[in-house]
Amino acid sequence: MTDPLDPVLTHLAARQPQIEAWLKTFLRIPSVSADPAYAGSMEDARRFLCERLRAEGLQQVQLLDGGGEAAVYGEWMGAPGRPTLLIYGHYDVQPADPVELWRTPPFEPTQDGDRLYGRGTSDVKGSTTVALEVVFAYLATLRACPVNIKVFIEGEEETGSPTLRPLIDRYRSLLTADAVLSADGGRASAQTPTINTGARGHAALEIKLRTAAKDLHSGRYGGGVRNALHEMATLLASLHADDGSVAVAGFHDGAEPPTPRQRQDTAAFPYDEAAFFTDVGGASHGEPGHRPRERITLRPALDVNGMWGGYTGAGTKTIIPCEAQAKLTVRIVEGQDPAHVIQSVLTHLQRHCPAGVGLEVVAMNAGSPAATLAACHPLVTAAEAVLQSPGGPKPIHVRLGASVPITSVFKEMLGIDTLMFGFNLPDEDVHAPNEFFRLSSIRDGVQAWTKLLDALGRFEPAAFHRS
Amino acid sequence: MTDPLDPVLTHLAARQPQIEAWLKTFLRIPSVSADPAYAGSMEDARRFLCERLRAEGLQQVQLLDGGGEAAVYGEWMGAPGRPTLLIYGHYDVQPADPVELWRTPPFEPTQDGDRLYGRGTSDVKGSTTVALEVVFAYLATLRACPVNIKVFIEGEEETGSPTLRPLIDRYRSLLTADAVLSADGGRASAQTPTINTGARGHAALEIKLRTAAKDLHSGRYGGGVRNALHEMATLLASLHADDGSVAVAGFHDGAEPPTPRQRQDTAAFPYDEAAFFTDVGGASHGEPGHRPRERITLRPALDVNGMWGGYTGAGTKTIIPCEAQAKLTVRIVEGQDPAHVIQSVLTHLQRHCPAGVGLEVVAMNAGSPAATLAACHPLVTAAEAVLQSPGGPKPIHVRLGASVPITSVFKEMLGIDTLMFGFNLPDEDVHAPNEFFRLSSIRDGVQAWTKLLDALGRFEPAAFHRS
Repeated sequence: MTDPLDPVLTHLAARQPQIEAWLKTFLRIPSVSADPAYAGSMEDARRFLCERLRAEGLQQVQLLDGGGEAAVYGEWMGAPGRPTLLIYGHYDVQPADPVELWRTPPFEPTQDGDRLYGRGTSDVKGSTTVALEVVFAYLATLRACPVNIKVFIEGEEETGSPTLRPLIDRYRSLLTADAVLSADGGRASAQTPTINTGARGHAALEIKLRTAAKDLHSGRYGGGVRNALHEMATLLASLHADDGSVAVAGFHDGAEPPTPRQRQDTAAFPYDEAAFFTDVGGASHGEPGHRPRERITLRPALDVNGMWGGYTGAGTKTIIPCEAQAKLTVRIVEGQDPAHVIQSVLTHLQRHCPAGVGLEVVAMNAGSPAATLAACHPLVTAAEAVLQSPGGPKPIHVRLGASVPITSVFKEMLGIDTLMFGFNLPDEDVHAPNEFFRLSSIRDGVQAWTKLLDALGRFEPAAFHRS
Repeated sequence: MTDPLDPVLTHLAARQPQIEAWLKTFLRIPSVSADPAYAGSMEDARRFLCERLRAEGLQQVQLLDGGGEAAVYGEWMGAPGRPTLLIYGHYDVQPADPVELWRTPPFEPTQDGDRLYGRGTSDVKGSTTVALEVVFAYLATLRACPVNIKVFIEGEEETGSPTLRPLIDRYRSLLTADAVLSADGGRASAQTPTINTGARGHAALEIKLRTAAKDLHSGRYGGGVRNALHEMATLLASLHADDGSVAVAGFHDGAEPPTPRQRQDTAAFPYDEAAFFTDVGGASHGEPGHRPRERITLRPALDVNGMWGGYTGAGTKTIIPCEAQAKLTVRIVEGQDPAHVIQSVLTHLQRHCPAGVGLEVVAMNAGSPAATLAACHPLVTAAEAVLQSPGGPKPIHVRLGASVPITSVFKEMLGIDTLMFGFNLPDEDVHAPNEFFRLSSIRDGVQAWTKLLDALGRFEPAAFHRS
């Protein structure tokens, strides 16, 4: 029996040299969004993409303007009744600085064995090219895709997507879809397939303590009065036990212990635990009874993000500060209510705040709950089917410590879930000198994306909205 | 038997109207050192003082220039073999702002019963006038003072004496003396005479903690690694017990418990303990077993003066800060070695700093030990004799929580001790609108200064340098 995808896969395999050549042209455009000096190149990149989308037969090809760098859009809506997938990528790249540390010119893609060096290779022109080439291959060979396609290539990802919300708001009807397939967000390893099935939620609290009407002279009052910094230090210290676990009553409410499957998947996650900490010069520290990987993805956490008060300039100023401030955020997991968790932190602080110390809530933000793609979600089951090679390891489910911003924005504004299906790998020095992408990832990627679109086309559109 | 001081005292009593008139003229000169707009008035005040010193027969009358506002100098050295006393005062005043809160014009002295309202009345043109008038009265009546006199009227006290050190360095031989009598530094009450016999010393320490090579994303690492702010909070919290006492091993070494005399004098010190705290909106807190007044003058203290790390701007930044910093100072008492005390704090911090956290000493300053005027020091015994009125209360010895800057400078640069012998009272709203001075304080002050110079003249110069 012939696989109906054979023409597409054969076409893509044959086109590998052309795909590489097109990617290199794309890479030669220094589309650095952070630096206004590259505004012309940003324009060039948009024109380059629009021309290709039009040439391959996409419709409604246009720039979507949210007030900043425009996004590139194009669609193929020839599969009525089938799901509509928004394919997300971005054409902007990080600045090349420090340029002197590059061994090859950052904007002249240079091949070395399987590696293609250059700014934007791994993040994310490589994977964006993979996704686009698969759509083009379907249209070139079968004259149709298994799903409706809306291509959305952003130009502000590297600057924090400042106008993504107004842009989506403006083009909401154009961007309506059943789910997002993101070319951004890479693989954890080439051997072990991983599927991101969720992320921790968050909430924030900022407090101010007051111990007097004004800063007092430490000569005149030292030893006699409360000091706002001592009080803040004592309060913040009380939030964690010595072992690093959170010591706040009610903080863990609703958080289920990791399931056996989660513990198993976490243990199978391909990463070097020691290197994870030594790479950033940090030390492993936290809730006992959990591996670090579990702690940062499957358990709630509480961090003080900023703390300040008193004199912070040069030299000495002998004051007893009357005011101290702190910003805190929590990461919460499935089953937890962000409002309840952040309230538990505030209640703890209020209960531990001694008489004579005023505690003011400067800001409190209940944030958002944890995100979850159910195990039966079409994005998950389709990815599992695609990533499970015969005799190969079973794809593991991975949860992220924090939601990816664009994923949250799509969920919040369009109500749709995202599958991250990028093909970059963790060692490819993204955002750093000598960034590279593997040419073999293009070959693996186009095969996987071909199968993924096919698998997704077998679901009813409503199936994407059930969980 | 006639008191040999009678002619002087009689002369001063008769001159009270002229003294008040001269003081009012002095007060009408708006010698605000902080505001360059008053530079001309600063010049006027210097000329006004120099003219008077010359008119009264002082010699070497001149301006001493340290690079800022010059000081006014004049001397009478007609008592060879007798002690030389440097009389300190200052001719500069605080700005009058907020002017709209004054009920009378700040630079038009206005009498209301015993009170003379105006900027600089209490701080410190009133007491400076008292000291000068006594010297002039001795010369006018007895043609001699009981001691050699060096008048030194500073013009930068209200701006923190920025050029006092270079000035003393430049005119060191001119300023050589056996002790300082300061017209600045007032009485605690009109009823209970007080003598300042010392001040706490100090030392400083600044530390930095590091938990990683860079700030980490709290989504990616939250719950997995140490947070520099948590570590700093825990370390700083460990410095004090819940009751506010210092919990650092070795911190109290050398500090003798207050003597019975000190406890008695402290208890007799005329002040409203509750108001001391409520006036500044603070709460009494500190070492148990001691009254607040003892804690702030007779016991060592440890205060965090500044503490900071992480994100302190607007909104939320979800980082795990890798660095935290804190400034600390200690106040130490008689018998303590500042280097030992500050080292005990550092040792405590190092001992409590967990593995995986780097502690760096940014700055460490052993400062200075506590200052003490021995009970048998001529300045003390002379003041006691003068302030003990027949049938009145015995003068109490008071120690200050921190040294007065000019006192420290004189001790450090000229090796001489200072007796603060100003006649202002605590309720006179110095540095505030509606500052006033009591005309009765002029009458009491000139009598006391007359007797003080006489009593000091009975000591050998060497007696001032023994303790």
